[in-house]
Amino acid sequence: METVYITRRETFNAAHKLYRDDWSEEKNWEVFGRCSNKHWHGHNFEVFVTVKGKPSEDTGFVINLKDLSKIIKQLVVDPLDHMNLNLDVPFMKGILASTENLVIEIWKLIEEPIRVAGGELVKIKLVETENNFVEYYGGKEPY
Amino acid sequence: METVYITRRETFNAAHKLYRDDWSEEKNWEVFGRCSNKHWHGHNFEVFVTVKGKPSEDTGFVINLKDLSKIIKQLVVDPLDHMNLNLDVPFMKGILASTENLVIEIWKLIEEPIRVAGGELVKIKLVETENNFVEYYGGKEPY
Amino acid sequence: METVYITRRETFNAAHKLYRDDWSEEKNWEVFGRCSNKHWHGHNFEVFVTVKGKPSEDTGFVINLKDLSKIIKQLVVDPLDHMNLNLDVPFMKGILASTENLVIEIWKLIEEPIRVAGGELVKIKLVETENNFVEYYGGKEPY
Amino acid sequence: METVYITRRETFNAAHKLYRDDWSEEKNWEVFGRCSNKHWHGHNFEVFVTVKGKPSEDTGFVINLKDLSKIIKQLVVDPLDHMNLNLDVPFMKGILASTENLVIEIWKLIEEPIRVAGGELVKIKLVETENNFVEYYGGKEPY
Amino acid sequence: METVYITRRETFNAAHKLYRDDWSEEKNWEVFGRCSNKHWHGHNFEVFVTVKGKPSEDTGFVINLKDLSKIIKQLVVDPLDHMNLNLDVPFMKGILASTENLVIEIWKLIEEPIRVAGGELVKIKLVETENNFVEYYGGKEPY
Amino acid sequence: METVYITRRETFNAAHKLYRDDWSEEKNWEVFGRCSNKHWHGHNFEVFVTVKGKPSEDTGFVINLKDLSKIIKQLVVDPLDHMNLNLDVPFMKGILASTENLVIEIWKLIEEPIRVAGGELVKIKLVETENNFVEYYGGKEPY
Repeated sequence: METVYITRRETFNAAHKLYRDDWSEEKNWEVFGRCSNKHWHGHNFEVFVTVKGKPSEDTGFVINLKDLSKIIKQLVVDPLDHMNLNLDVPFMKGILASTENLVIEIWKLIEEPIRVAGGELVKIKLVETENNFVEYYGGKEPY
Repeated sequence: METVYITRRETFNAAHKLYRDDWSEEKNWEVFGRCSNKHWHGHNFEVFVTVKGKPSEDTGFVINLKDLSKIIKQLVVDPLDHMNLNLDVPFMKGILASTENLVIEIWKLIEEPIRVAGGELVKIKLVETENNFVEYYGGKEPY
Repeated sequence: METVYITRRETFNAAHKLYRDDWSEEKNWEVFGRCSNKHWHGHNFEVFVTVKGKPSEDTGFVINLKDLSKIIKQLVVDPLDHMNLNLDVPFMKGILASTENLVIEIWKLIEEPIRVAGGELVKIKLVETENNFVEYYGGKEPY
Repeated sequence: METVYITRRETFNAAHKLYRDDWSEEKNWEVFGRCSNKHWHGHNFEVFVTVKGKPSEDTGFVINLKDLSKIIKQLVVDPLDHMNLNLDVPFMKGILASTENLVIEIWKLIEEPIRVAGGELVKIKLVETENNFVEYYGGKEPY
Repeated sequence: METVYITRRETFNAAHKLYRDDWSEEKNWEVFGRCSNKHWHGHNFEVFVTVKGKPSEDTGFVINLKDLSKIIKQLVVDPLDHMNLNLDVPFMKGILASTENLVIEIWKLIEEPIRVAGGELVKIKLVETENNFVEYYGGKEPY
Repeated sequence: METVYITRRETFNAAHKLYRDDWSEEKNWEVFGRCSNKHWHGHNFEVFVTVKGKPSEDTGFVINLKDLSKIIKQLVVDPLDHMNLNLDVPFMKGILASTENLVIEIWKLIEEPIRVAGGELVKIKLVETENNFVEYYGGKEPY
């Protein structure tokens, strides 16, 4: 049996801003542009979680998508959906709410639970708009 | 020459919440659910603006899409993109920031400028997520 | 306050076949082509339900999407998702499982519950593949 | 049995330009902008053809999609796909190659063949880019 | 000339179920959930086939997409489209009809014909729904 | 801080043909099929540019998307949008206008400017139609 990569998509809608309190408003505007609006803006985010493994001879599954979906919903969608990434999310406290930083924190949350469920997390893709997304491989080699 | 309907899409990202200050938090939660989060959430909005008319014999156009796009960008995208619908948008002041109410206000803003540009606005579709959108015909008959 | 049309999308995956027992296999093949495969085939269906109304002054809503989503999930998605349209669905018994017939039956199921929830059902769009879909207005004038 | 609207999508890729030989280059640029490039540009077009009718008691079909698809492929896709709308398409000769004009000509081509096949053409939607499309109802009331 | 990766998409609609005859219905339900429905369900599948190579100096092609498309249509779409993955597909006999197992079998079918056509198959992506897909690299290193 | 991959999408519409003057029309037709139409055809292209790096502690960014977008717009979209790939584009002169060759030339144009802006270009994906796209990694290992 060969290694297959399986991906589950979940979605959440959230507000955030890119703003540093230790910078002037001008500096924030210069670097972050419209994303620095003090009153927040928001996005419909899509998160794609990829798990690697050999299909089980018992089930044909790399990982049961019910389990994978449950992990993502509990650990990612529930704390982020309809939330403010800067104000409401404990694991983003003190971290600039860029998509890059968010995807790294999501990795930390779900890597171990996925391992416990029998899978190996190899990639997270986080889509912010139709024009930009980030991909993260946990600092390991990209697959 | 026959009547044709032409549609232009533009996009904007914004924050909002559905929350009434004259209701308790419990009441807000009961009615608006997660959308009532005090700290805001947000969406990637898509707005589709439809104009009706006969193609010009000179240009083949119902309306020049450069003109239509310019009207939408100046009057809709610029005031809404990366903004907070409740706090930053003069024409939404005092109005519950539901998609239904927003689409009505957008109509009021662009109907006349489109007429001046030689077109007749007949529909606005406002997409909030892949799972919900509103359509508005200015109180006139749907086309 | 003006009339707005609001639409909710839900999805379900189902098997079906287009096959008449009172026709020969050849006749079934001639009319229904590959869709007549006795062993079934299937699709990822998308159902878009549109409700018409004036936004409530209390909530800004034509209908609370939580309520609309619940009606569609209970009455449409639950009986159809991962089901066989010909074998498993009581309201399709004795009816050719075409998309046209299915959308009519879905209308009958949800029109009254939507009215009870305060909305007026005006359209159902049922998407079978990226290349074909049907729209139904309950025999009333299209909106 | 009630009236249902069924839609088939087909696609074609074509080149065109918006340019009038009886205008100066400056005038062409002023009106048509980049679309006036003498050396052409092109698009992936999508055409959605909608037919109205009551589902047949025999087949459950408004129209057999195999027949509808065949008509669109023969009369629309075959003459337009990988063609130059200004140079290669007999039915566009002498007509400004705007999307508005194209959709009107497509209507003329397929209305009668669809009637012969037992359907009533009620709408054609022609998508030029993700940001603009036209809809045409044959000069009749929109459905 | 440098190595480029070219991908062709084809689609097929099929029925399947995830069900083991040597398990009780309860066990099947516990593991496979709704996918275990005895009467089948189905999906609109998309298959993306990626071939690696250096663009030919003669043609600018890694592989002629007409050839690649023909291989996929003959060996994948034709045997799978409007079929039942458990009952109708010789190469899936005796194999649990999971997406993971299907993508592996598709690889075996097309790797050699693609090589004969001058290409090197490096990836197959098989999309089951908008929320889940699998990727397979033939047991080789992912590209 | 870990390595993250960030991608920006931009779009352009262009005409091209696949045709060699040193081949007969028959030979061109045999190899390139409909793409060899002398009068051109065209597409809506999407270009996805991926940059690799560690998020800056100052900004949370791998690269400022405003800068990345500006580079792509100036060096790729501006010279290609509404252009003829065979006639209007200096960097494509003398090169067969296949998607494979185009993606290689785009790489050469933007690799260095992205480096100057502080990023490392690792991938370009160029989408020609919903059914085919190419990916290029600059001759380096795929990420």
